[in-house]
Amino acid sequence: MNKHTPASNVQPVSRFPVPKLKDMPPDVRARIEAVQERSGFIPNVFLVLAHRPDEFRAFMAYHDTLMDKADGLSKAEREMIVVATSAANQCQYCVVAHGAILRIRAKNPLVADQIAINYRKADITPRQRTMLDFAMKVALEAETVGDEDFKVLKKQGFSEEEIWDIGAIAAFFALSNRMANLTAMRPNDEFYKLGR
Amino acid sequence: MNKHTPASNVQPVSRFPVPKLKDMPPDVRARIEAVQERSGFIPNVFLVLAHRPDEFRAFMAYHDTLMDKADGLSKAEREMIVVATSAANQCQYCVVAHGAILRIRAKNPLVADQIAINYRKADITPRQRTMLDFAMKVALEAETVGDEDFKVLKKQGFSEEEIWDIGAIAAFFALSNRMANLTAMRPNDEFYKLGR
Amino acid sequence: MNKHTPASNVQPVSRFPVPKLKDMPPDVRARIEAVQERSGFIPNVFLVLAHRPDEFRAFMAYHDTLMDKADGLSKAEREMIVVATSAANQCQYCVVAHGAILRIRAKNPLVADQIAINYRKADITPRQRTMLDFAMKVALEAETVGDEDFKVLKKQGFSEEEIWDIGAIAAFFALSNRMANLTAMRPNDEFYKLGR
Amino acid sequence: MNKHTPASNVQPVSRFPVPKLKDMPPDVRARIEAVQERSGFIPNVFLVLAHRPDEFRAFMAYHDTLMDKADGLSKAEREMIVVATSAANQCQYCVVAHGAILRIRAKNPLVADQIAINYRKADITPRQRTMLDFAMKVALEAETVGDEDFKVLKKQGFSEEEIWDIGAIAAFFALSNRMANLTAMRPNDEFYKLGR
Amino acid sequence: MNKHTPASNVQPVSRFPVPKLKDMPPDVRARIEAVQERSGFIPNVFLVLAHRPDEFRAFMAYHDTLMDKADGLSKAEREMIVVATSAANQCQYCVVAHGAILRIRAKNPLVADQIAINYRKADITPRQRTMLDFAMKVALEAETVGDEDFKVLKKQGFSEEEIWDIGAIAAFFALSNRMANLTAMRPNDEFYKLGR
Amino acid sequence: MNKHTPASNVQPVSRFPVPKLKDMPPDVRARIEAVQERSGFIPNVFLVLAHRPDEFRAFMAYHDTLMDKADGLSKAEREMIVVATSAANQCQYCVVAHGAILRIRAKNPLVADQIAINYRKADITPRQRTMLDFAMKVALEAETVGDEDFKVLKKQGFSEEEIWDIGAIAAFFALSNRMANLTAMRPNDEFYKLGR
Repeated sequence: MNKHTPASNVQPVSRFPVPKLKDMPPDVRARIEAVQERSGFIPNVFLVLAHRPDEFRAFMAYHDTLMDKADGLSKAEREMIVVATSAANQCQYCVVAHGAILRIRAKNPLVADQIAINYRKADITPRQRTMLDFAMKVALEAETVGDEDFKVLKKQGFSEEEIWDIGAIAAFFALSNRMANLTAMRPNDEFYKLGR
Repeated sequence: MNKHTPASNVQPVSRFPVPKLKDMPPDVRARIEAVQERSGFIPNVFLVLAHRPDEFRAFMAYHDTLMDKADGLSKAEREMIVVATSAANQCQYCVVAHGAILRIRAKNPLVADQIAINYRKADITPRQRTMLDFAMKVALEAETVGDEDFKVLKKQGFSEEEIWDIGAIAAFFALSNRMANLTAMRPNDEFYKLGR
Repeated sequence: MNKHTPASNVQPVSRFPVPKLKDMPPDVRARIEAVQERSGFIPNVFLVLAHRPDEFRAFMAYHDTLMDKADGLSKAEREMIVVATSAANQCQYCVVAHGAILRIRAKNPLVADQIAINYRKADITPRQRTMLDFAMKVALEAETVGDEDFKVLKKQGFSEEEIWDIGAIAAFFALSNRMANLTAMRPNDEFYKLGR
Repeated sequence: MNKHTPASNVQPVSRFPVPKLKDMPPDVRARIEAVQERSGFIPNVFLVLAHRPDEFRAFMAYHDTLMDKADGLSKAEREMIVVATSAANQCQYCVVAHGAILRIRAKNPLVADQIAINYRKADITPRQRTMLDFAMKVALEAETVGDEDFKVLKKQGFSEEEIWDIGAIAAFFALSNRMANLTAMRPNDEFYKLGR
Repeated sequence: MNKHTPASNVQPVSRFPVPKLKDMPPDVRARIEAVQERSGFIPNVFLVLAHRPDEFRAFMAYHDTLMDKADGLSKAEREMIVVATSAANQCQYCVVAHGAILRIRAKNPLVADQIAINYRKADITPRQRTMLDFAMKVALEAETVGDEDFKVLKKQGFSEEEIWDIGAIAAFFALSNRMANLTAMRPNDEFYKLGR
Repeated sequence: MNKHTPASNVQPVSRFPVPKLKDMPPDVRARIEAVQERSGFIPNVFLVLAHRPDEFRAFMAYHDTLMDKADGLSKAEREMIVVATSAANQCQYCVVAHGAILRIRAKNPLVADQIAINYRKADITPRQRTMLDFAMKVALEAETVGDEDFKVLKKQGFSEEEIWDIGAIAAFFALSNRMANLTAMRPNDEFYKLGR
């Protein structure tokens, strides 16, 4: 809870009911407790989506396969895609939470805000700029993706598998951003300061 | 393959490699063979996404929990949401494939095309119109979803859980449409005629 | 009438009064009866526009001079332009009715739906793709048409007269789509299945 | 020709060939000579469209039945619709030529420029404001026209036939504006000063 | 006041209070009386902004340093930027008032209306077209301005200082247009005819 | 300079020449040294705009009269308007720098990021939400501002003078954001952490 604002103005965690840990299915609860132990707090996305355990499981499985992959794009680059496209979708939870992760992964306290506000002016490489141009295209007008885009990406050294990753991360957060805006998912206060 | 067009113009099934059944992990293959047996053909979405088995599994789990639910919105209504939002995203695969399913589920050969082109003029109930207005908002400008929208939906008799379903289906197909446009996923010829 | 839907949900043929054949001026009536004999039914556009005989005559004269021309673009290509631009304008009548004509003219049951949903991924030639890119520009942002566009079209072998035709068909259906959306013109049930 | 600019910068009358009076079909030529006698000059739209006599005839017939009607909307109001929607479509010919006609018909030297730039702030009645709101909707997003719009118009006293007229004029100039932008139709210098 | 319209339809000079000359601070009043002497009337922008003397002073200082500069862009070119971007922002006051100034500065009675409606088809040089393309980019999507834009401008011979001027004028009128639309600033009747 | 990124990726302070303190006119230099003493560093906006001393003076005078006013809107509320509209314009400098000021003025470490990403979900009062809705309208579509907007604001208790302030701040930052994007103005590293 935000201590800096009159309680009446503080937005709740979700528009929908938020289950208690003790009422969750054991696997969902176990997953959440593991995160809590690692991070010191429970990111609200886990609580909000636990309202629907089956969706929770599919969401987390999808997220992990795209974001925890060892080869190809770096973990910081994956988070750059999340931050850029989530900002375009005005998703408060994803920009704040993944902005924090990006700061940590990139060991750079500035780049998350730079990308969120205008990725074209961030302290990134030309290759990363090309990556984000494509991610934004998938996020905002995927219907126009064509062979030309693939040529531009390959000229920057991206493999076919990396291109799939860029597009798939943008596509997954198209879902994620909409769920966060549907549920009015509140970013935890803890995220704002992490990695600064 | 489209027999009606010079082979050189026929678009392929995917921009990315499409695995053979025999090379797929057993669970993925089993799932696909079950669909094939039921439908008489393999919808291309299964072949295209099988290129990435982990994403395949998460995608199908997410899809099934949203689309195969017994209570609340009818199955035809769920497909209406898919068709309306996928048309807005210009997703060829999803409109053609789910248009076919909608015709079958609604036992109505006209409604899928009507909704795909302009859902505001389809032969649907005012309640379904309200449902699609909200689904389109989640698909196209989820950042503006607010309390007013929930009031309008509740006035039409939608419960909180049904509202989550409407939004979650629109959100899931935001992902699905982008994957289809990223991969240039080709709708199977069989879908075009089903349920007409 | 759509037999598959409760009568209360079925949209009427027009928001405006629809005249009876016997009350129409003889030339309008003759034209309509000729179509009826040839097609087996009266396409609703004739009934809806007959409410205003002078506009009916000008509309049909304009339509015929653009769509029935023998040389230059093929008849199927002219219908492709209609379907692509009418889909962009969300015109139910034009997409359904001209989609049927396109299927017949192109002897191809798939191409109309492909073009309506996302013409960039249809089974068409690169030359036809260029034609539709230009038609969409005229339909959606004609104010930006410039010399560059003409160069691109000429490189694909289009003559000046063919370029006029592409633009003029897109322009005429800008009118037609708006009249159909103004009157809520209902596509006849018969069109949905033709040519599949 | 604009005498105030180096000849090299002056845009031509049309991107397409412009026929000579003596080479036109007699009825087209007669129509043009009648206009010339009445106005003292030949508005370029006649010369540009005469390149295609059949389209010329249909265009003029359509134009006249909508714009020369005696009852319902006043002639000035019809021109207001043309100027507002043509400005939204950035059609130089239509705004300049019909702006002149509007100044003359309304006996008001200011209202054409006011409407072209921002019709919401023009010196018009609330009823005319409602008329233009609807015309702009037909021009820019006709797919969303619905029963609510008709209610608003009727509350301002518009009959069904007048609503058709508003929509049909907006629809016809959707065609006209696109033909002018396709052909780069140049407004005659004479129009700029008329009625000021 | 517009004598051609029933008084009840004539829009006022401002939505906010308009001070009398005698109530203004002496420096503001002196500046306004100087304009009045030179022009024969007081342009409404002076009266409307004098409601806030400090903003008035800053606004006029900013305006003069950008618009009265002797070297680089010509004064007519500076006014072209104002007219093109103000039309895109639908600012009645700026298009009418600066359109008049442009006609006078360019000694060309046509070019202001041409640029206001569709600058791409105005009687201007290719260099001026490039200048306006950039000004429109700053006005409408400044977040995408990048190195490529500077290259295009330099190829047309623009210096760095001239590029700053183009951008700064577009930026200043982004402010000016919004103040005019906020206050519903009415263009003086006198402007419409000047320089024709 | 960002120490966390390879020097080659770090964006410069401005696309244009940045003058040295010793080369600035005395008044400009004095103003900057006063800020430096107060803040401990020189915000880049001062250095970037000092390239043009006259514009610098007008800009700062305009800024101060709008942002340092004692009555009406609180200073935190003025900064909220800056952050919300600058985020909509993707202005990196303004969001980062004024975000810091907002955190300090509001004594709230969260509200700046919340407003920048999606002001509709920030921890603010309904009155502040109405204020930001109007500021965004002025920033993004000022041409549609009308009497209805004033009624909504007055119902929330805003006076005419406060409405002018809201609109004028949004208008001034429409200029400021465009100058920052034109010059690629880099936010100082110091701002990112202030007030967290």
